[in-house]
Amino acid sequence: MEEVEGISRLREEVARLHQELVRAGLVVWTGGNVSGRVPGRDLFVIKPSGVSYDELTAADLVLCDLDGNVVPGSEGCERAPSSDTAAHAYVYRHMPEVGGVVHTHSTHAVAWAARGEAIPCVITAMADEFGGPIPVGPLAIIGDDSIGRGIVDTLRGHRSRAVLMQGHGPFTIGVSAQEAVKAAVMLEDAARTVHVARQGGNIQELPAEMIDRLYDRYQNVYGQQTDDRR
Amino acid sequence: MEEVEGISRLREEVARLHQELVRAGLVVWTGGNVSGRVPGRDLFVIKPSGVSYDELTAADLVLCDLDGNVVPGSEGCERAPSSDTAAHAYVYRHMPEVGGVVHTHSTHAVAWAARGEAIPCVITAMADEFGGPIPVGPLAIIGDDSIGRGIVDTLRGHRSRAVLMQGHGPFTIGVSAQEAVKAAVMLEDAARTVHVARQGGNIQELPAEMIDRLYDRYQNVYGQQTDDRR
Amino acid sequence: MEEVEGISRLREEVARLHQELVRAGLVVWTGGNVSGRVPGRDLFVIKPSGVSYDELTAADLVLCDLDGNVVPGSEGCERAPSSDTAAHAYVYRHMPEVGGVVHTHSTHAVAWAARGEAIPCVITAMADEFGGPIPVGPLAIIGDDSIGRGIVDTLRGHRSRAVLMQGHGPFTIGVSAQEAVKAAVMLEDAARTVHVARQGGNIQELPAEMIDRLYDRYQNVYGQQTDDRR
Amino acid sequence: MEEVEGISRLREEVARLHQELVRAGLVVWTGGNVSGRVPGRDLFVIKPSGVSYDELTAADLVLCDLDGNVVPGSEGCERAPSSDTAAHAYVYRHMPEVGGVVHTHSTHAVAWAARGEAIPCVITAMADEFGGPIPVGPLAIIGDDSIGRGIVDTLRGHRSRAVLMQGHGPFTIGVSAQEAVKAAVMLEDAARTVHVARQGGNIQELPAEMIDRLYDRYQNVYGQQTDDRR
Repeated sequence: MEEVEGISRLREEVARLHQELVRAGLVVWTGGNVSGRVPGRDLFVIKPSGVSYDELTAADLVLCDLDGNVVPGSEGCERAPSSDTAAHAYVYRHMPEVGGVVHTHSTHAVAWAARGEAIPCVITAMADEFGGPIPVGPLAIIGDDSIGRGIVDTLRGHRSRAVLMQGHGPFTIGVSAQEAVKAAVMLEDAARTVHVARQGGNIQELPAEMIDRLYDRYQNVYGQQTDDRR
Repeated sequence: MEEVEGISRLREEVARLHQELVRAGLVVWTGGNVSGRVPGRDLFVIKPSGVSYDELTAADLVLCDLDGNVVPGSEGCERAPSSDTAAHAYVYRHMPEVGGVVHTHSTHAVAWAARGEAIPCVITAMADEFGGPIPVGPLAIIGDDSIGRGIVDTLRGHRSRAVLMQGHGPFTIGVSAQEAVKAAVMLEDAARTVHVARQGGNIQELPAEMIDRLYDRYQNVYGQQTDDRR
Repeated sequence: MEEVEGISRLREEVARLHQELVRAGLVVWTGGNVSGRVPGRDLFVIKPSGVSYDELTAADLVLCDLDGNVVPGSEGCERAPSSDTAAHAYVYRHMPEVGGVVHTHSTHAVAWAARGEAIPCVITAMADEFGGPIPVGPLAIIGDDSIGRGIVDTLRGHRSRAVLMQGHGPFTIGVSAQEAVKAAVMLEDAARTVHVARQGGNIQELPAEMIDRLYDRYQNVYGQQTDDRR
Repeated sequence: MEEVEGISRLREEVARLHQELVRAGLVVWTGGNVSGRVPGRDLFVIKPSGVSYDELTAADLVLCDLDGNVVPGSEGCERAPSSDTAAHAYVYRHMPEVGGVVHTHSTHAVAWAARGEAIPCVITAMADEFGGPIPVGPLAIIGDDSIGRGIVDTLRGHRSRAVLMQGHGPFTIGVSAQEAVKAAVMLEDAARTVHVARQGGNIQELPAEMIDRLYDRYQNVYGQQTDDRR
């Protein structure tokens, strides 16, 4: 019973977060997807393939196991899940700390990915959020585990919660679907800002020691999570 | 009777799709137009010339034959059809598989068209949707069949459902008006992304074999059209 | 009585058109202004100075004579008119065919103006609407007639209904306020598109003969103004 | 009693102004903040840390003294104030004429800040609003007074109400929170326009004497604040 309620709440949350992708201008047409792990279970919910953001409801989301198979008999199981489901599943299978995964083709992140170029950490907002540059993952073949493996191999042990898959686009992760969406939004913002900055002239990476301090502070004292004054 | 209902449904659909052009930011003022073929008939409906998107209703759309002549006595026949009607008619006349045509002056697609430069296929989203680069059509003289002929000569036998008419702008086609609008949206997205990518440095076309695999997969397994798991 | 109704209708129209500037993204905060000539009278209505677009109503507009003086006792006469009123008045005084004037600081038009560079006519949309390149007016001193004179000296006898005042920004004119707003919207669209086109590589002006044919056709057969088929 | 009403009105105003940041596209997710000084008191209200703009209400704002300490027992005092509170407090402490402070990571302003490059005054809109170029402040260490000191040292005695903190982003000030938000909006507009202008070719600063005249006129006669004709 509790689990049913947990999945139902997650569905509502993940459906709502898809609208955040639209609002932030990160997706067009039916592209992009958000998934969220069912707390304490080897399951996640994900966008169905090729469904319009206007029509997407919580009941449309597809419940999958960590091999990416649809759970038979579950709500929405008659729908095909996102064509990126295998990549999401791979991430959940190999990174137990991840509670949410997001994929978009947001313009500026894809532009860096098309060049296979990491985004240098030249502004404090990147240091705060990603703790350094945004790394590039491999040009992956479709139809096997290579996208998922590329994401995990790049992000495991890395501060960044975002990876630019070469020639393809960004994937972001988080402790929750909400945090993964936040990372996708902040990534596109950083990708656009650093692109514009460099078009106008020379840019310079922030000192490593400054990045460390900013990252540490933002991760630990930003927001409302503690009672300490910040 | 059935045909009347079919035309009526098509009018509603094509009127609605014009709003998608506005929402996607592909058109300004009264520019741009969508048409849709009446299923099984040598007729299509198209935007009237110079009418505001705010005011456009299903009843305003103009019913034309495949020579671009307004059907006398039909709903909306007192209105002049789009100044691009001859080009749409030429496409329907020569490409029986086409069910919808879209023309816009969307910023980045027009920018490539102004240079007469094909958009190289450097990202998987382009391989998925267009199966390769977006081709350029001729700088066409207005007032005869040369725009329509340029579209057909460029797109016939080509995977791409979009063509950049030199010095003018994009036309897209699809099996339905909806698919042609989708192609117009995805085209502008690709045109913008590849522009930004190249402004920032060198880009490289995806390997041909990879493009083939991506295109084949996307055309056959994306979305909800089959019962197979994907 | 008829005149009162005429002014009242014009106020409604000009108030509404200010919202089009907002919707098209041509203005920020209280910047920009639209004016419209009272048909058959040496009077025009214009935006009050420094008033927010959210709060602007038809009654707020200020009625001025062609020397730019507020008409005493008229509705809204307690408000100061736009700081650009003298320039609008000069245009109405010297170009009797003009029924509307618009001024904005829209991003891309101002960028060309900052360089004092005319926008070359490289796309058919510019040929249709402006009949050639968008010309540059002088870097004008504020506080006398030099802005108005610069607009009139540049646009008189020119096909273009838009001028880029150097170091300042665009002014557009039309037979009505609506047509002047249309020109402002199409200008920013052209300014952005040609900027993007040239950032990506070489561009080339359309042949003069082609521009003439496009301009002639668009001015005479586009839209719903005649009964002829087009 | 009067003071309670004054603070309540200020809370409403500052909450409303946060929505202006969203509307103008200057902020993403929970980034950015507005504060306003309580008239005649050594207190100000500021955004709580990490709270969504969708959920932000007047009651959520945090009341602080000029050392940046939350006023115990005040409305919203259970919330942590913005992580930029120390910088705002420093400004209020050292610039008694300032009634409002705004911080954003708006794209183009941050791009100039990333290069540590002042925005040259090449358009009349900048002369009007800022009276010259937008200056750059130091790359400041986080966690002490160095951001606030950098803002004050740069803006004190300067016409500009905006400073680009190197590697970080813009802060703007005003006699009220509304004026500081206006400066943030106009700054991003100028930063974007001058960036685009320079991408397209050479730009040139306006003559100093012209800047002085424009600034003087705009500050003294623009808007509805006097009874003089302008």
